[in-house]
Amino acid sequence: MNELINKEWKLHTHGLVRVVDLMGGDDAVVQMARCSYGEGTKTVNEDRGLIRYLMRHRHTSPFEGCVVKLHLKMPIFIARQWVRHRTASMNEYSARYSEMRDEFYVPQTDYVQIQSKANKQGSEEAGLDFKTQLDFANYTEYSAQEKYTGYKDSLDQGIAREMARINLPLTVYTEMYWQMNLHNLLHFCSLRSDPHAQREIRDYSDIILHEVIKQWCPLTYEAFMDYVMNADTFSAQEMTILKRKLNPNDDKTIYEMDEYNGLSKREQDEFLKKIGRSV
Amino acid sequence: MNELINKEWKLHTHGLVRVVDLMGGDDAVVQMARCSYGEGTKTVNEDRGLIRYLMRHRHTSPFEGCVVKLHLKMPIFIARQWVRHRTASMNEYSARYSEMRDEFYVPQTDYVQIQSKANKQGSEEAGLDFKTQLDFANYTEYSAQEKYTGYKDSLDQGIAREMARINLPLTVYTEMYWQMNLHNLLHFCSLRSDPHAQREIRDYSDIILHEVIKQWCPLTYEAFMDYVMNADTFSAQEMTILKRKLNPNDDKTIYEMDEYNGLSKREQDEFLKKIGRSV
Amino acid sequence: MNELINKEWKLHTHGLVRVVDLMGGDDAVVQMARCSYGEGTKTVNEDRGLIRYLMRHRHTSPFEGCVVKLHLKMPIFIARQWVRHRTASMNEYSARYSEMRDEFYVPQTDYVQIQSKANKQGSEEAGLDFKTQLDFANYTEYSAQEKYTGYKDSLDQGIAREMARINLPLTVYTEMYWQMNLHNLLHFCSLRSDPHAQREIRDYSDIILHEVIKQWCPLTYEAFMDYVMNADTFSAQEMTILKRKLNPNDDKTIYEMDEYNGLSKREQDEFLKKIGRSV
Amino acid sequence: MNELINKEWKLHTHGLVRVVDLMGGDDAVVQMARCSYGEGTKTVNEDRGLIRYLMRHRHTSPFEGCVVKLHLKMPIFIARQWVRHRTASMNEYSARYSEMRDEFYVPQTDYVQIQSKANKQGSEEAGLDFKTQLDFANYTEYSAQEKYTGYKDSLDQGIAREMARINLPLTVYTEMYWQMNLHNLLHFCSLRSDPHAQREIRDYSDIILHEVIKQWCPLTYEAFMDYVMNADTFSAQEMTILKRKLNPNDDKTIYEMDEYNGLSKREQDEFLKKIGRSV
Repeated sequence: MNELINKEWKLHTHGLVRVVDLMGGDDAVVQMARCSYGEGTKTVNEDRGLIRYLMRHRHTSPFEGCVVKLHLKMPIFIARQWVRHRTASMNEYSARYSEMRDEFYVPQTDYVQIQSKANKQGSEEAGLDFKTQLDFANYTEYSAQEKYTGYKDSLDQGIAREMARINLPLTVYTEMYWQMNLHNLLHFCSLRSDPHAQREIRDYSDIILHEVIKQWCPLTYEAFMDYVMNADTFSAQEMTILKRKLNPNDDKTIYEMDEYNGLSKREQDEFLKKIGRSV
Repeated sequence: MNELINKEWKLHTHGLVRVVDLMGGDDAVVQMARCSYGEGTKTVNEDRGLIRYLMRHRHTSPFEGCVVKLHLKMPIFIARQWVRHRTASMNEYSARYSEMRDEFYVPQTDYVQIQSKANKQGSEEAGLDFKTQLDFANYTEYSAQEKYTGYKDSLDQGIAREMARINLPLTVYTEMYWQMNLHNLLHFCSLRSDPHAQREIRDYSDIILHEVIKQWCPLTYEAFMDYVMNADTFSAQEMTILKRKLNPNDDKTIYEMDEYNGLSKREQDEFLKKIGRSV
Repeated sequence: MNELINKEWKLHTHGLVRVVDLMGGDDAVVQMARCSYGEGTKTVNEDRGLIRYLMRHRHTSPFEGCVVKLHLKMPIFIARQWVRHRTASMNEYSARYSEMRDEFYVPQTDYVQIQSKANKQGSEEAGLDFKTQLDFANYTEYSAQEKYTGYKDSLDQGIAREMARINLPLTVYTEMYWQMNLHNLLHFCSLRSDPHAQREIRDYSDIILHEVIKQWCPLTYEAFMDYVMNADTFSAQEMTILKRKLNPNDDKTIYEMDEYNGLSKREQDEFLKKIGRSV
Repeated sequence: MNELINKEWKLHTHGLVRVVDLMGGDDAVVQMARCSYGEGTKTVNEDRGLIRYLMRHRHTSPFEGCVVKLHLKMPIFIARQWVRHRTASMNEYSARYSEMRDEFYVPQTDYVQIQSKANKQGSEEAGLDFKTQLDFANYTEYSAQEKYTGYKDSLDQGIAREMARINLPLTVYTEMYWQMNLHNLLHFCSLRSDPHAQREIRDYSDIILHEVIKQWCPLTYEAFMDYVMNADTFSAQEMTILKRKLNPNDDKTIYEMDEYNGLSKREQDEFLKKIGRSV
């Protein structure tokens, strides 16, 4: 655990995830849970079983007994998504108090993707030619530099920092100390390491999940991957289909079942994808 | 109360505060408080006395029984301050899902102020000539238009909305449904209608406080103004000075007192200002 | 919606669930969600589809836009479970300020059950003879009356209410105003209408879910039942089994699969139960 | 800080406050605050000044960067007051899962006080004769023992733990792991170390404030005592009186001032008490 403190990961143009402080770990999850049961310490194997049981049955409070404080640097368009998670404690660099630094996000060309048609809030991997990608990256860099020059000019004219900064683009980097307990952090990762999240915030979330949490609380990490990240949920209607298919004496195909045909087209596709069939 | 629903206030370039829905009011505060006391309804005058008592003694839970949902439009640099208040429920317009509109904040010239020296995070009213103010306003408008053109070009090239928007400036307007209970809303206003808040967010907070809350919960509003907004707090050290001055048999001036001289220069100034003396 | 206000349900000895106030409903969920998409009103059928989509994909914030305030009466051993849900606003009757009333919970005989061996925190339906059940109910009633007499005696001797009440049993009724938004309330119901919850709190939760929420937000209720209450989640390991069984060319039985045999005995039983096989 | 871990304080019959884990301290408050200002480390004296500034101006977020986890044992009538503080993480001993222990609160005789007439929710120190006090303490002990015997009998008859425990009195001890950040903990102490809090919970809060926090974060403790616990707040009306009295050329006594006479009798008394005059 001590080895994690001050460990840092860099990403993107100027991005940073650094562990400032930690409290607890797998041991603390177990200890907090055992308070409910009035039990003392057990073997490591029993600890693993208990953590998996807690995760599987959504007994979330013992995971709140672990806390991590991170030092983060990210562009403002990511920070705006980040702070929607309300159960954190944070202190952010103040653009009213201090001058913003000349640090802006510029996407790698392969991050510049075409608007997805299937997913109105996302992008798709193929479809943009390299020149369009490169032009956008260059435009982003040029545009930021130009605006930073404008910002410095405004400051030179005596204009208050809080006003001068309003013309900066959403690519400008901010930094913060950000603290969350493990239960809420896992929930954060379940949303932000999801394929529907914007790729930039997903990169941060992936570091937090697959680096920080994995090293900090390996048993919790394993249970979380098995019971949340790589788990699937089936609706009441889908469960009826599953039960019919998984029990003998029913020779209808899924496609012939009333329950399947009662699903919306979108849900049919989601269902087939979950059970590993091509849509 | 019904008259308030759908009432709206416009401010700045494209700003909006609109009441979407309300729950409770002064009556609900009183009703919730009386549950603790096991008492029924009383006269209006007793209601006023009870609300003032609750406010004075920081009995905050009855004020949580009132809730307001607002429709807000504000530029992103304000939205970033706004969402720091974590006890709200909100849904914001998604720049990943929908195209951003051509709406940007442009400050009136008298909002463009000089950096304050006394208050590192603020600005001061005098000191900038009109031309500098006007130039900044024009630059802000021009700069936004230019970036909006760039944004539309990126979209035309097929670049995903979530990526194209990163070059927009912090002046771009966003909108949201935002809901908070009265206790947390009063706290919000105590911080954001404070002279240290940036003037733009203060304008929103003032509308919420002096228009929405005042009409919605007039007794609570009156008590809040008397016991919070226009109240002052004196530290242990300052209380010693006050007690010595306010009770007979002490002919020392404040400036001669050890307690006063033990304060830091900054606290001395704050103290004198609170008791209405020029610093 | 107005018809729900002041509607009340009685349960157990002196229990009460009464709707004091409501804000929002299915319409408000839809309206709040559409703010993200920048869209206006749609048909009822599209509203239903949207609510089901939000529920299925865990887009929880629009459900926070609905709020209910309830008047509740319950014994203290239930109230202690109740207040573990931290995202509520509440005001409770004060046993320091007011005298406790002569109201105590006495279980019906069929609520008096044997300690479960399988479920260490629960009870089992069969196994206690009627006389034991009746004796316990009578003992509970007698014991409460005796303690209430002791309480009144203490008060008569001038002992402060806050002290006199400490000898009352956990069956004594308290009452409160309790307010929660719909998202958190659904989560409350998912935990407290679960078979693992103690039967007494389940009775309250069932009223809130199947009476209050069902009438208040019928589309949300339907979606919640389909996608949460009657849904099932399968772990990564279980998903592997499902995919093997549901796709052709695999003639192994579940019991022969390595993935099945890798599950703990407890998880094997949970898995079989989910897919409708007897354990 | 390490010295505090596992340190414990015993109080009352079976009460316990034990430090399980800590994160942060005065240093962490300063570090988190400086993130906003973009500044590095400073001298200890500047740290003290910064912490006092943060406390005085209610900049609360840096105090959230410190977290303490406590192991607590307390009777249920205190636990019910305790859990009203919603910003904590906790896990409590489960009376459904495990058998309750034979541990009950019995007040010392001097804790048994007369009902206060001035303060409807409190007690007064003088007025009860020793025999009444002793009789109550004895009754409390006897009553608990009797109920514990009844509890054990119910368990012996096979009745589920979750049901058998309902006849236990509010004096029965429970225990929990309870975690809170420093900002919320100070708020907890400001309410529970207040003279209006019930003496039993005040004893716990005093240990947390004057022992745990004082040793853990001495600079924060000092600032909190000066700017919150021993500070006083004056309403708008009271401030008018203060300003008139503290500035020359006004020879009216407080009692002659319209502002004073405009206060309710209760507020007049509160005002006089604050400025150190007998009511």
